[in-house]
Amino acid sequence: MESKFNELCHLARQTACLKSTLALLEWDQQTKLPAAGGAYRAEQITFLAGEIHRRETDPRRGELIHDLTNSDLMADPHNDKAATIRELGWKYSKKVKLPQSLVESIARAGSIGQQIWVEARRENDFQKFAPHLKEIFRLKREEADAIGFEDQLYDALLDEFEPGATTTEVALVLKDLKNDLVPLIQEIEASGNRPDASFLGRNYPVDQQENFCRLASAKIGFDYDRGRLDVTHHPFCSEMGPDDVRIATRYDESWFGTAFFGTLHEAGHGIYEQGLRRDQYGLPPGQYCSLGIHESQSRLWENRVGRSAGFWRYFFERAQSHFGHALSDVNEQKFHAAVNRVEPSLIRVEADEATYDLHIIIRFELEQEIINGNLDTNDLPEAWNSKYQTYLGIQPDSDANGVLQDVHWSAGLVGYFPTYTLGNLYASQFFDQANSDIGDLEQLFSSGEFTP
Amino acid sequence: MESKFNELCHLARQTACLKSTLALLEWDQQTKLPAAGGAYRAEQITFLAGEIHRRETDPRRGELIHDLTNSDLMADPHNDKAATIRELGWKYSKKVKLPQSLVESIARAGSIGQQIWVEARRENDFQKFAPHLKEIFRLKREEADAIGFEDQLYDALLDEFEPGATTTEVALVLKDLKNDLVPLIQEIEASGNRPDASFLGRNYPVDQQENFCRLASAKIGFDYDRGRLDVTHHPFCSEMGPDDVRIATRYDESWFGTAFFGTLHEAGHGIYEQGLRRDQYGLPPGQYCSLGIHESQSRLWENRVGRSAGFWRYFFERAQSHFGHALSDVNEQKFHAAVNRVEPSLIRVEADEATYDLHIIIRFELEQEIINGNLDTNDLPEAWNSKYQTYLGIQPDSDANGVLQDVHWSAGLVGYFPTYTLGNLYASQFFDQANSDIGDLEQLFSSGEFTP
Repeated sequence: MESKFNELCHLARQTACLKSTLALLEWDQQTKLPAAGGAYRAEQITFLAGEIHRRETDPRRGELIHDLTNSDLMADPHNDKAATIRELGWKYSKKVKLPQSLVESIARAGSIGQQIWVEARRENDFQKFAPHLKEIFRLKREEADAIGFEDQLYDALLDEFEPGATTTEVALVLKDLKNDLVPLIQEIEASGNRPDASFLGRNYPVDQQENFCRLASAKIGFDYDRGRLDVTHHPFCSEMGPDDVRIATRYDESWFGTAFFGTLHEAGHGIYEQGLRRDQYGLPPGQYCSLGIHESQSRLWENRVGRSAGFWRYFFERAQSHFGHALSDVNEQKFHAAVNRVEPSLIRVEADEATYDLHIIIRFELEQEIINGNLDTNDLPEAWNSKYQTYLGIQPDSDANGVLQDVHWSAGLVGYFPTYTLGNLYASQFFDQANSDIGDLEQLFSSGEFTP
Repeated sequence: MESKFNELCHLARQTACLKSTLALLEWDQQTKLPAAGGAYRAEQITFLAGEIHRRETDPRRGELIHDLTNSDLMADPHNDKAATIRELGWKYSKKVKLPQSLVESIARAGSIGQQIWVEARRENDFQKFAPHLKEIFRLKREEADAIGFEDQLYDALLDEFEPGATTTEVALVLKDLKNDLVPLIQEIEASGNRPDASFLGRNYPVDQQENFCRLASAKIGFDYDRGRLDVTHHPFCSEMGPDDVRIATRYDESWFGTAFFGTLHEAGHGIYEQGLRRDQYGLPPGQYCSLGIHESQSRLWENRVGRSAGFWRYFFERAQSHFGHALSDVNEQKFHAAVNRVEPSLIRVEADEATYDLHIIIRFELEQEIINGNLDTNDLPEAWNSKYQTYLGIQPDSDANGVLQDVHWSAGLVGYFPTYTLGNLYASQFFDQANSDIGDLEQLFSSGEFTP
């Protein structure tokens, strides 16, 4: 059994080697690829995704998993080996349901979809993106059908990101949250307490922003010997090896928050990846356990840490030394209040903590409607705008700031959005627990201590 | 036969897809990889090189080649299909002689070797690199033995870069050239005609150098929609798709020539790659025919064009507008003379046209001695310095500027160097022919016309 286990691990590590190579192809597409290189890049991505699927559904892998699942290596379910067999088995049983051609089609559509999305968003042209979006959702429905589900099609997609969670459970959590958030936001609005945030819209030179982003992300624990920071269209984090985790952000010269909180968010993902067990790289004990947990780390560093008073007690002076002109008449208290201002807004990744989850709920509802066949993707801009009116009382001024703002659907990530809200909820619990275990975290932050 | 031909092409194109992915892994290693990412990158490169070899030696490929080689598709040897079958057959017959494990070992040694070389060169520490160099030459000797040869071990390695050429032939060409060059260089030295080039060593800000490199390389025909320019340790050009050719250079703030002529050289490679037949991508008619021909294009743009009077008639004013301070008291004639100054120097890639080939002859002789077992790699610095004394009358001030200056051996490129000199000779013939076919090329250059 030991030799079968080693063989299974060897196969999994080889697949991980291809996956990390695929991650480089994708990272490069989003950060470095020459303008005309997109069509062939999609072919490379499709080919590698196909090779990965072939290996993940290799009958030999199935035999090994079958034999090992019934072996005494499973005696202690908390053991690394048992976890490895169980998780690889779970993955195998899902992957064998997916036809090779569907996997390749989804990979191709995702690569091309992202490229077209970049153009469509830049040109504020939903029609340009519409046929690709339609095709992506068609393929994702086919995927959900192939995987199968007990209750709803959407379950099969959600399970890819938050294993074991069901649509019904998640909907319940989000509904409860919404019932608390809506009156909270109304109360905040009625209070008339609206801190001045206008200085966040002054001129923040991109070079200085990048320096400050690097400074802060390194300080909170992102290791630049094992990672990079680059520029992209939509912030992301990607790992392409046990010592190679890359984050990417975008800069808005006249808005401080875009790059800074975006970088903290992605650095949170990166710190989590860099903290995984190196010796288990390519095996389940060396991998993230769910996207909700992953997002709990990004949202924790972005918000629970990055918008705290202690954080700015340490960082505000440093911000001033980077952006002297923009912050000359601002003090720490005003700055801390500004980055915590609550106000319904159009862009999810820049939303405050109170309204953020409403952005998620909107997406969660819309993607279910599309997957269930109750909403045509061509009608999405209208449905999007109408939900923003209902939940946030505002309407996008353009599709670029509306339905085209997020990269996810273009990349085939359907069922991903709710993990942000789960992440927010997990993050708060982790943070509170850490606070009671370690002591006054804000006190530590204020002296530049982020390691504990 | 048509369907067999199509199947063979399909296999070759799939392999090309993996090769272009491998090229991205290597490009990234040389330009973007985080410091700690090297070990796993070597694993990725090794794994992909192994996969490529497995496909290149696939018995099915052998069957198809065998059947097609005896078919009437070979009737006209100048036909695309005949060329495809012939070239893939030639490659197959070589590759099947190489054990899978050797191919993987060479890939791993080359990836790690390059990483160690970067450190060793930076730290001027040959000892750090020595064990890797020894191992690389040991593996290359094993490779040459496996491939086989008629006359000399080195033939088998040379054939990889300049197919069909033999060591004896190349040695003869180089000897003849040396016999002409040595008195020419002496004559130049004796003439006392030594143009002032000191202003090339003034301060040239890196940003401005980069702008000027981009301007010039684009002007001569490198298409940035289908390519990139990045920073690296040793200049190179790499293609990772039919519309994705990347060049990289390095900057010396106090020497104009390093980045500029380096970029022209790599842009020459890039223009050649960008000019290959896109519809034949991944098949022999869409690939370069030899490294000598490849180098003929880089050396042509670097020297025959880039050091011509016509070129600087067009570009000198533009150089002044980029580097006003450094060139305020220089005129076009002085500048043109300076970039053509002949003087024995230490660094191959920065050598003038007259002394350049002596650098190549030194390397060509040394690598043969090592491959033939007549020189131990540990004794290489001494042998290197002694040959520089003999051929160029100078001695390196450090191993970093001596035996450690070139990336090639660290990457497993043994037998590559003579292609530079072949390239120089081809380039001169192409240029003279173009001059008589098209008319006065320098006249065209002086008005910024590089397209014909």
